[in-house]
Amino acid sequence: MASSFGKNIHISLFGESHGEAIGVVIDGLKQGIMLDIDNIEKELNKRKPQGSISTSRQEKDSFKIISGYFNGYTTGTPLTILIPNEDTKSTDYQPNILRPGHADYTAFLKYDGYQDYRGGGHFSGRITAPIVIAGAICKQILLNKHIKIATHIKQIHHTIDVDFAVNPQELEKQIDKINDSYFAVISSTSKNKMLDEIKKAKENLDSVGGILETAILNIEGGIGEPFFSSIESVLSSLLFSIPAVKGVEFGLGFEFANLYGSEANDSFIFNNKIETKTNNNGGINGGISNGMPIRFKTVIKPTPSIGKEQQTVDLLTSKEIIMKGKGRHDPCIVHRARVVVDSMTAIGLLDLYVSRYGYMWME
Amino acid sequence: MASSFGKNIHISLFGESHGEAIGVVIDGLKQGIMLDIDNIEKELNKRKPQGSISTSRQEKDSFKIISGYFNGYTTGTPLTILIPNEDTKSTDYQPNILRPGHADYTAFLKYDGYQDYRGGGHFSGRITAPIVIAGAICKQILLNKHIKIATHIKQIHHTIDVDFAVNPQELEKQIDKINDSYFAVISSTSKNKMLDEIKKAKENLDSVGGILETAILNIEGGIGEPFFSSIESVLSSLLFSIPAVKGVEFGLGFEFANLYGSEANDSFIFNNKIETKTNNNGGINGGISNGMPIRFKTVIKPTPSIGKEQQTVDLLTSKEIIMKGKGRHDPCIVHRARVVVDSMTAIGLLDLYVSRYGYMWME
Amino acid sequence: MASSFGKNIHISLFGESHGEAIGVVIDGLKQGIMLDIDNIEKELNKRKPQGSISTSRQEKDSFKIISGYFNGYTTGTPLTILIPNEDTKSTDYQPNILRPGHADYTAFLKYDGYQDYRGGGHFSGRITAPIVIAGAICKQILLNKHIKIATHIKQIHHTIDVDFAVNPQELEKQIDKINDSYFAVISSTSKNKMLDEIKKAKENLDSVGGILETAILNIEGGIGEPFFSSIESVLSSLLFSIPAVKGVEFGLGFEFANLYGSEANDSFIFNNKIETKTNNNGGINGGISNGMPIRFKTVIKPTPSIGKEQQTVDLLTSKEIIMKGKGRHDPCIVHRARVVVDSMTAIGLLDLYVSRYGYMWME
Amino acid sequence: MASSFGKNIHISLFGESHGEAIGVVIDGLKQGIMLDIDNIEKELNKRKPQGSISTSRQEKDSFKIISGYFNGYTTGTPLTILIPNEDTKSTDYQPNILRPGHADYTAFLKYDGYQDYRGGGHFSGRITAPIVIAGAICKQILLNKHIKIATHIKQIHHTIDVDFAVNPQELEKQIDKINDSYFAVISSTSKNKMLDEIKKAKENLDSVGGILETAILNIEGGIGEPFFSSIESVLSSLLFSIPAVKGVEFGLGFEFANLYGSEANDSFIFNNKIETKTNNNGGINGGISNGMPIRFKTVIKPTPSIGKEQQTVDLLTSKEIIMKGKGRHDPCIVHRARVVVDSMTAIGLLDLYVSRYGYMWME
Repeated sequence: MASSFGKNIHISLFGESHGEAIGVVIDGLKQGIMLDIDNIEKELNKRKPQGSISTSRQEKDSFKIISGYFNGYTTGTPLTILIPNEDTKSTDYQPNILRPGHADYTAFLKYDGYQDYRGGGHFSGRITAPIVIAGAICKQILLNKHIKIATHIKQIHHTIDVDFAVNPQELEKQIDKINDSYFAVISSTSKNKMLDEIKKAKENLDSVGGILETAILNIEGGIGEPFFSSIESVLSSLLFSIPAVKGVEFGLGFEFANLYGSEANDSFIFNNKIETKTNNNGGINGGISNGMPIRFKTVIKPTPSIGKEQQTVDLLTSKEIIMKGKGRHDPCIVHRARVVVDSMTAIGLLDLYVSRYGYMWME
Repeated sequence: MASSFGKNIHISLFGESHGEAIGVVIDGLKQGIMLDIDNIEKELNKRKPQGSISTSRQEKDSFKIISGYFNGYTTGTPLTILIPNEDTKSTDYQPNILRPGHADYTAFLKYDGYQDYRGGGHFSGRITAPIVIAGAICKQILLNKHIKIATHIKQIHHTIDVDFAVNPQELEKQIDKINDSYFAVISSTSKNKMLDEIKKAKENLDSVGGILETAILNIEGGIGEPFFSSIESVLSSLLFSIPAVKGVEFGLGFEFANLYGSEANDSFIFNNKIETKTNNNGGINGGISNGMPIRFKTVIKPTPSIGKEQQTVDLLTSKEIIMKGKGRHDPCIVHRARVVVDSMTAIGLLDLYVSRYGYMWME
Repeated sequence: MASSFGKNIHISLFGESHGEAIGVVIDGLKQGIMLDIDNIEKELNKRKPQGSISTSRQEKDSFKIISGYFNGYTTGTPLTILIPNEDTKSTDYQPNILRPGHADYTAFLKYDGYQDYRGGGHFSGRITAPIVIAGAICKQILLNKHIKIATHIKQIHHTIDVDFAVNPQELEKQIDKINDSYFAVISSTSKNKMLDEIKKAKENLDSVGGILETAILNIEGGIGEPFFSSIESVLSSLLFSIPAVKGVEFGLGFEFANLYGSEANDSFIFNNKIETKTNNNGGINGGISNGMPIRFKTVIKPTPSIGKEQQTVDLLTSKEIIMKGKGRHDPCIVHRARVVVDSMTAIGLLDLYVSRYGYMWME
Repeated sequence: MASSFGKNIHISLFGESHGEAIGVVIDGLKQGIMLDIDNIEKELNKRKPQGSISTSRQEKDSFKIISGYFNGYTTGTPLTILIPNEDTKSTDYQPNILRPGHADYTAFLKYDGYQDYRGGGHFSGRITAPIVIAGAICKQILLNKHIKIATHIKQIHHTIDVDFAVNPQELEKQIDKINDSYFAVISSTSKNKMLDEIKKAKENLDSVGGILETAILNIEGGIGEPFFSSIESVLSSLLFSIPAVKGVEFGLGFEFANLYGSEANDSFIFNNKIETKTNNNGGINGGISNGMPIRFKTVIKPTPSIGKEQQTVDLLTSKEIIMKGKGRHDPCIVHRARVVVDSMTAIGLLDLYVSRYGYMWME
């Protein structure tokens, strides 16, 4: 279903960018989970625009839990979270001017003109805020089982960060460090170059995209299903739900095309337990986890909203026109998208765990 | 669910490589569809190993329709198709020797030793044969609405074919040509080089992988849903269900990371109707089709079964050992996987169309 | 899923009796439907306690649409409706005193003490208010296709109303009359007797239950599916979701046990079109509508909350104690449940229609 | 979906009465379950026509497991079971003669003439054989957890059997006795009268229906969900999928309408653990089990196929005609339907248990 996901952990997203509120209903969480509200806010902050590399528009993102929560614990019934839209001046929007790279035209085709076009409506990146809240809760539950998820900025425009470490101890340190930072890169040299790329794009009234790399540590072997509920299927389906994601690859991904089988296969070794010598397959074989860290990359296209002039069409007149973006734009959303990727990963992974171990497994 | 997919067109896959039969139940097809059995066989042939570039093992893949079919037409009730497994000598299999790159170990972890390990069991590429049958039927229904799907081999190892044409008329010619060929490349120069790559890998007892590019022509605008049923979500979830697929990208995909927004955005033009000047987004914005051809790429990892020596572990003794693949292997499955990609695409796309227009729309 | 329903029209209920708000997310409604807000309020009024036969507690039930609605029309994206809980003084609730006939004990068993016990929490009849809103919208869409749904009070305690008429013209008149009344009976003699029954129960600090009969007029033949999505399966599953419903029967229902096949079968006649002479099967054969009015009955058990003394157990002490209901109770909820039955019927029926004709069919 | 059910234990039914085979795919069973094939056959025998009270047509119902089963254990992948149709002489069927009480006409309306009309096609009671197999497996898994399910014939035509005992020890004895008998009644006096009723109907070329009562023993408290996955919702949805079921009531069911709240409520008592003094609610409050035995009744309408003359319409000519049933009919299917009711109950209950405790809970 369009805005609903999940077999066990069932998520219903709702809301439009300039409507009264956005939010999410999460059905299937176990009772008795003490929500770490501070942590949810910390996660939301990772998604917020901050500093000169982001839009100057400030979202407050204060949320209210309106059901499924009692005396500081989940009740087991649907947990509903609401984020009121507080800054909804939207008089300037011109629904007839199709913004290139956005969903204006496809929303028009699908909804026949009845869509709430203001600020992108239901297609706005703003709807990822409730995803981050749902993800924060799922991550908390997974962390109670020692499962850690982190995403770092692997690339912004032409600047490339190092990969996550292969060594699990080192990987865990990187994960912890990244999860405490707003601009999540491993190498600080890369960080400064990336910030320069973003600033340069901003000065040119343009935008840049990039690549995110995600790791899941301490996932046990045997999670996932063959075929349609393979880990790759479940996660990719969630990741491609994020506006601006246009590619997902697991392990070596597209690089596999350049290798021989003898180079690509992960040999098995015995190191107190069975492991693989390399992790080219990103911790997944046949859709199922093998106990190695799961690793995948996600590409985020450059923010479609730019200040530069662009050619487009006026829906009312069918004339080709030149539009110029006005106002506040993000020259880059890669660093903000990172926590959305984390969140989708957590939602999908928790759903797969609960398939195997049931509702009562959560704590 | 593991081996079930679909909201409207509901697919249940079943079977193991060396069991009595494999097959599929398709629920949700409209009554009165005259199945083109010859076409189904033609599609199955595209998946079969042929010539010196494939395994010498010959599968017959003769199928029986055992329900939902009456007097040459679908009845509207579940259509069940069975492919008996005829060549099931499996005495040589050693379940304790974990084949690198395969699902042997993850199946063991998940199923605790009870899995049918012979020939990969339910994880065998053989289970893609019923997918091809289901796909052939879905493609036939889509073709009745003038929607064409084709996949060509974009890359095998270091050899790269041209991209699909941007011009729709030229694209249509390429699609028709490709859909009539077994080894689906656009440029015949590339074809010969690719065949050489495969032969070389075979001589070295090794294997190669590659990249497939898919196009969907004449899909109307407005198909797909926001978020969890975006076209990208639905198709990626199906594509990652195919064994050996490790990456999927739509439009420019990972190349988006290198571009500025002003380069990446597809300008709108008016050419009797609204179109985009470029098609960097692969025909999809906000998860919904914009009327341009849909384009995506899928990476197929090198066949894990190789003749070369590999290091692995013996489950019984926990000792590291050297194994050597024996018998018949595919040095490359990219060309065979192409029709599986087509099929998954058709299944997902038909499901989305039926969401919009209903069961009665099919014909 | 617990609080989610539907393949095409997807409903997510949320909220607790004494939480901040209750509500519903409805995903899958077509864009461009002009919501009749007055009608939604009129439907909600049918559910409200009124006069001396109901609890003196007054719920305001003012609702807010917070997403999926723009300029007076649905947008096609999730429609979210919120009903704030305004009267939530709940200091008197004693979670340890298990009220007989309520879900206090089962909620405790399921949620291990973490449930919001105040006023029954998520199990409260109050959660049926958002169902009525969802139902009002679905009924409006069905009415645009000339499909009418109505439920009358067939029985309260020992007083029995006449059945719905078999003649379609007469049935339509009854439906229209009933849909305009608060206490929905066909015969006014029965009405007065029923009111007396309720008053008598109230005087005795007791409560009464009853039976509702529902008719669906102008449903076309061919709606529904074999087996698990039979009309009976879909509707019963929704009807049994209503607190207090303990039985559902279609057509003659349990009376079938007393008849011979020759008495029970509905003969076919030709009356410009094929009809059945009788309608013992309630318009459904093999789970699918035959074009005759659909008819079913639903039993509502007596309100469990009564003023009389009852024996129960104190969870804290495990002692058997005598409890006495205090405050305001409904001596009967049958007349209020009637619009909830209508609503569930509309939700299920719309989902089945959309399966057949698609999203675009709605208007 | 039409012929698919289940969140965790996913069932896909397929086949037509006179097609090549009927069967079922069961996805979601845990690996390592040793199937008791003898027990499956014993359960199938309960569904078979036997003796003079049934049709003389003999179905062999020999089944083949064609996937998901290896060395005597389930593998965890989809379990597919096939029952070949061996006696498929169907030359005499006249699709234009609509049999009263059957799905001939509704199947025609839904499938527009393309349905396999022979012997009722997919609507045939024959499709309940694979349900019995699926149910036998689910019952076996539940029995490993000490959960027992049994259904007895409560009424055939005017003859009524006693109710299941309220006392759990006595109930368990009744359950065990009933589960070992073909014609499942508690009182042997009733049995003989019921057999007489059936014989009398048979002599008159007529048929009779009846009521089944089901009990579930040792179900723990806390199983089920609020609203749409209440135990009543899940079970009723499955029970109404059985051809000929027209009513379902839990606990006192329709009798609740005649009682005062003070009579209907089940008082809580403390008897080493919390129990209810009576079990009017059939072991379910708020959709969730309270630990008392679950009890419900199901009405089976008289077999529509009778030898007597009946009025109907010829689809080809639109003329009203008199038809006379020929050949072999069941004068009663109530006793055969009993194991189908058991089976559906087991399928639904296992699905709810697995929601709570996960896939790994099964054994």
